Amino acid sequence: MLSKNQIKLIKSLGQKKNRQQLGLFTVEGIKGINEFLDSDFELESLFTTELIFDTSANKTNEISEIELKKVSSLKNPNTALAIFKIPKPVQPSNDGLIVVLDDVRDPGNLGTIIRLCDWYGVEDLVCSKATVDCYNSKVVQATMGSLTRVNVVYLDLEDYLKSQKNSFGTFMSGENIYTTNLPETGVVILGNEANGISENIKSMVERKITIPQFGKNQTTESLNVANATAIILSEFKRRTIEK
Amino acid sequence: MLSKNQIKLIKSLGQKKNRQQLGLFTVEGIKGINEFLDSDFELESLFTTELIFDTSANKTNEISEIELKKVSSLKNPNTALAIFKIPKPVQPSNDGLIVVLDDVRDPGNLGTIIRLCDWYGVEDLVCSKATVDCYNSKVVQATMGSLTRVNVVYLDLEDYLKSQKNSFGTFMSGENIYTTNLPETGVVILGNEANGISENIKSMVERKITIPQFGKNQTTESLNVANATAIILSEFKRRTIEK
Repeated sequence: MLSKNQIKLIKSLGQKKNRQQLGLFTVEGIKGINEFLDSDFELESLFTTELIFDTSANKTNEISEIELKKVSSLKNPNTALAIFKIPKPVQPSNDGLIVVLDDVRDPGNLGTIIRLCDWYGVEDLVCSKATVDCYNSKVVQATMGSLTRVNVVYLDLEDYLKSQKNSFGTFMSGENIYTTNLPETGVVILGNEANGISENIKSMVERKITIPQFGKNQTTESLNVANATAIILSEFKRRTIEK
Repeated sequence: MLSKNQIKLIKSLGQKKNRQQLGLFTVEGIKGINEFLDSDFELESLFTTELIFDTSANKTNEISEIELKKVSSLKNPNTALAIFKIPKPVQPSNDGLIVVLDDVRDPGNLGTIIRLCDWYGVEDLVCSKATVDCYNSKVVQATMGSLTRVNVVYLDLEDYLKSQKNSFGTFMSGENIYTTNLPETGVVILGNEANGISENIKSMVERKITIPQFGKNQTTESLNVANATAIILSEFKRRTIEK
């Protein structure tokens, strides 16, 4: 059974300000929920049409398919919806490669970038305050569980970058990513989908890098930010094999 | 003015079978339409709220914002919608790097992959018959004009691959893409979002390649197919610089 208050709570978590105020967010689907249950995230409550999860009885609510449909953000809800607590922010380390996002707005892009960080062993993802919230349900869905393994922090980028060495920014022109020297430790900054890296951050970038175009077509478009992240992480990390 | 028949025609082009029967597809927005007008694609008719395009008068229809909204597939229609003719399929060349998609279903993924082919100078993209139609409006939108510069062909993959040498398939395990030898000419096969490369195609792959995971997290998820394409094209193409 879903009470009116529970419905109201779940729906309210669709908005960032409510998530932040209550310190809660939702995860949907068997696989995603199990990834969060297996992690350090703390379960607040679970709503499920099948009692197949390893959760304590007082946090588990059996509900009907119709009730699930009512609160789900998915077209085709998958068995369960869970509410987890948003963990306290952990400061990024000063070691290894760190990805920095300057106002990435698309939830799918952020979700995919978190998944890429997970794949390439990037432990910290620093986001500007205007970057889409990583506890947005579309982001959580797109991360496929990677959000449990990557530390995502929202900081004032200007402040943060002041204390960082080896900062790389991705631009339409700059050092060729394939032929330039890349360190194992540093920060890689990627910009907004439409406008790239903002002017105030641009001036703080130590090294401008670019992914060159091949072939005879020289398009004026840039690559999608998630694809650019994929290629750049690939380049930084493959160098660590060769050493 | 938009006639009832014109509205009916435009709406009918939302379906693949109608696009194929009529040999027509739609493009929306100023930038996208201009990319197609500047290419070898042939304009059938243009519907626009502003007469800002370099098109012949008998193919140009001035319409109102309200009329555009009625036929647009976008939430926020952008000035114009054009109908172009689907060109005759061109057989892929047997030179250079060719990307092959085995049942990629998501329009955003196909659009992004076409954009990546354009960026990396891949001239031919061979798709299985079950791969999403490249003239689907969401694909056209996601390609950002790259569809005018990449030859997309739908073929029976088993037939096609019989005559191909140097075929590479992407799998969760295989030769490490970063350390294995990669030729300049060959075909790279990427599989369906959920199921990867199908069984019958798998047996035709000469070399299985993989993008290794880094760091301590070993996720069971694979990378998104568009990101995998980005990383693989990046690896194949950077080798051509070093030579």
